[in-house]
Amino acid sequence: MAKFSFSSPTPPVVLLTDFGFQDSYVGVMKGAVLSTYGFAPIVDLSHNILPQDVTQAAFMLYCSYRYFPENSVFAAVIDPGVGTDRKILCMEAANRLFLAPDNGLLSLVEEEEGAETIREVNNEELFLQEPSGTFHGRDIFAPVAAHLCSGTSPSEVGPEVESFRKLNLPKPVHTADDTLRGEIIYIDHFGNLITNISRGMVETSFECPVETIRISVKQHTIEGISETYSSVKEGELVALVGSTGYLEVAVKNGSALELLQAERGDRVVLARPVEGGEE
Amino acid sequence: MAKFSFSSPTPPVVLLTDFGFQDSYVGVMKGAVLSTYGFAPIVDLSHNILPQDVTQAAFMLYCSYRYFPENSVFAAVIDPGVGTDRKILCMEAANRLFLAPDNGLLSLVEEEEGAETIREVNNEELFLQEPSGTFHGRDIFAPVAAHLCSGTSPSEVGPEVESFRKLNLPKPVHTADDTLRGEIIYIDHFGNLITNISRGMVETSFECPVETIRISVKQHTIEGISETYSSVKEGELVALVGSTGYLEVAVKNGSALELLQAERGDRVVLARPVEGGEE
Amino acid sequence: MAKFSFSSPTPPVVLLTDFGFQDSYVGVMKGAVLSTYGFAPIVDLSHNILPQDVTQAAFMLYCSYRYFPENSVFAAVIDPGVGTDRKILCMEAANRLFLAPDNGLLSLVEEEEGAETIREVNNEELFLQEPSGTFHGRDIFAPVAAHLCSGTSPSEVGPEVESFRKLNLPKPVHTADDTLRGEIIYIDHFGNLITNISRGMVETSFECPVETIRISVKQHTIEGISETYSSVKEGELVALVGSTGYLEVAVKNGSALELLQAERGDRVVLARPVEGGEE
Repeated sequence: MAKFSFSSPTPPVVLLTDFGFQDSYVGVMKGAVLSTYGFAPIVDLSHNILPQDVTQAAFMLYCSYRYFPENSVFAAVIDPGVGTDRKILCMEAANRLFLAPDNGLLSLVEEEEGAETIREVNNEELFLQEPSGTFHGRDIFAPVAAHLCSGTSPSEVGPEVESFRKLNLPKPVHTADDTLRGEIIYIDHFGNLITNISRGMVETSFECPVETIRISVKQHTIEGISETYSSVKEGELVALVGSTGYLEVAVKNGSALELLQAERGDRVVLARPVEGGEE
Repeated sequence: MAKFSFSSPTPPVVLLTDFGFQDSYVGVMKGAVLSTYGFAPIVDLSHNILPQDVTQAAFMLYCSYRYFPENSVFAAVIDPGVGTDRKILCMEAANRLFLAPDNGLLSLVEEEEGAETIREVNNEELFLQEPSGTFHGRDIFAPVAAHLCSGTSPSEVGPEVESFRKLNLPKPVHTADDTLRGEIIYIDHFGNLITNISRGMVETSFECPVETIRISVKQHTIEGISETYSSVKEGELVALVGSTGYLEVAVKNGSALELLQAERGDRVVLARPVEGGEE
Repeated sequence: MAKFSFSSPTPPVVLLTDFGFQDSYVGVMKGAVLSTYGFAPIVDLSHNILPQDVTQAAFMLYCSYRYFPENSVFAAVIDPGVGTDRKILCMEAANRLFLAPDNGLLSLVEEEEGAETIREVNNEELFLQEPSGTFHGRDIFAPVAAHLCSGTSPSEVGPEVESFRKLNLPKPVHTADDTLRGEIIYIDHFGNLITNISRGMVETSFECPVETIRISVKQHTIEGISETYSSVKEGELVALVGSTGYLEVAVKNGSALELLQAERGDRVVLARPVEGGEE
């Protein structure tokens, strides 16, 4: 409890859950954080992960963590295995701390950054007393995150683990006929369709300029990858590398979800322009 | 404004309303808190109470307050009587402060903890100037909560009251044929069906082990009360004492609400196992 | 970074967007604020503006800003023009700071308060490195708001502008036959229908007492403007000047939206009582 000073602010506890806002579960987690360390700033990353959708949460965490200050403590509670013997992990990576169930949630961050340490959280002195079997967000994640925020060393949460679970996510495939086949992995609130094709893949998979790459999705074709939504007319489809760092398909001031009736998992194919084509 | 120190953090102002997140009502309340006391940490308990559902709010507050730090100031604004002569109450209980309309919202906490004092909030010096007749959350609750958070004594909000309104909630009934008849009082975001049967009633109503109690709800029967959701197979019904401290009916990694098409008020009956039964 | 002191709290960064809570966009903006200035308190005004509805956002900001402390920094990101050459503005007004795209969002506050200065935000030293073309909320608004919150002078964000865009909102019309014709401009979470008829217009447009003004909306007539929702019986229509300062039509403990099946833009007409009428 000695971390507070004028020169460096207390790092935030950042919450990511599938609890929604209808109930008091998120509020109660925050109560448990502040009961443990009353100076902790708390930030909601999101609480609207689809119930128990570990993949969506892993992707959201991966796209977000780098925008938070160093020493931030992430507590990610998408936990279909609560009450089983699944472990709770504490990962040090990218100068930040990450708490999550051992279900793959941390694997995209680990793949990107490597991990300094990954520990099993089992030091019951850091938990609420008599933790329930059903709400580890309140009884374990919140107080442990608060302890870490207050300056408790990660080495106190428990021993390092030998291995942990990884997600087996679909990867884009570069086919023999020189197309790149990816898929939609996230659809946002605006109806933008975000794919698993990264900026790096877009830039290195073809020898043509990105402005000429042809994108196919749900029987529609988009000619060229743009810089911004405003490159096309109102209501038209546009493909661009969005703020997540991944290729997305959008409609200018509209919803690609509505226009294309797309779903997560739908295929998105990139190809070089046709010879003698229209660009 | 002298409460701030290194050794003790400022206690939070905790908001519970039926305002939802669509409008700016919650945001404006927070503005009014910070305009009164700019050091106040603010936590949302929930803003998605069904419009004017005092019972739901009372239950949520009751299940939540103990997880917040001592000296927390709760402002609960579910207020169908705004603009009438209903009082606003300030209750000291469990080393915390509770502001709410005099409509029963505080009665479950009071029943559990007893109240040190219950006062009528009528000191207009603590209100925003010229309070409206329609938005006491902004004009009265927020500034009074902020004053209390800053260290203003509860004795300054107004005089103690003689009596206050209590909720008349349905209580489970132990019938002559030795069944315990309760009902669903809250359905959460995951579709878990939370009843009014407390852990204590579960443990003391029958002489058999809880693992053998038979639970009936909506033509379904569940054999035994489990410790965690993971005691059954994916998609199966499970009964357990949940994180609220009350018996709930859930589906492992699914929604009991969807499976049973249940509603608040539906009966849940506990009974001893049948002699020679299958446990 | 020298603004922090015991005697004056850090003013909040207040966020208003159409990002919703489904995704992590709001959370990531907060990360970018705290990465820039870790002491910044952050408040959500609302994130549920209808996608790209600048008018709704302008009205919400106008009804809200005065309840926040002086020196608050508002970052309003409803930005259909992101990626075009539209400017980002920084307005000093009412002893507060307002960041928004140059699309009319600030015009109602400016009309009410006048502006001390309006600048174009173009000092890239205050932005995140390599800002994207699609997410200026994270890459420009958040860090600039945090810098302003930390004490950076508005004069550092960029040069003053000559002109800026204004909204052309429908104004109520006082007709020749002495009626005042306004319209519904906002419908809130409770189903209250908020019009563009201000308290001032209500009080000065007719020579009769406001309790006798006749309000017509969607084939219904309401006799007289009340002080509070509780002036009528449960389920009945009531007209009053609401917490926004504008005339609204409500149903006591119910939803005027449901009862009247009203929409934004529907006409609301005020008239003097009929001679020999029933009041």
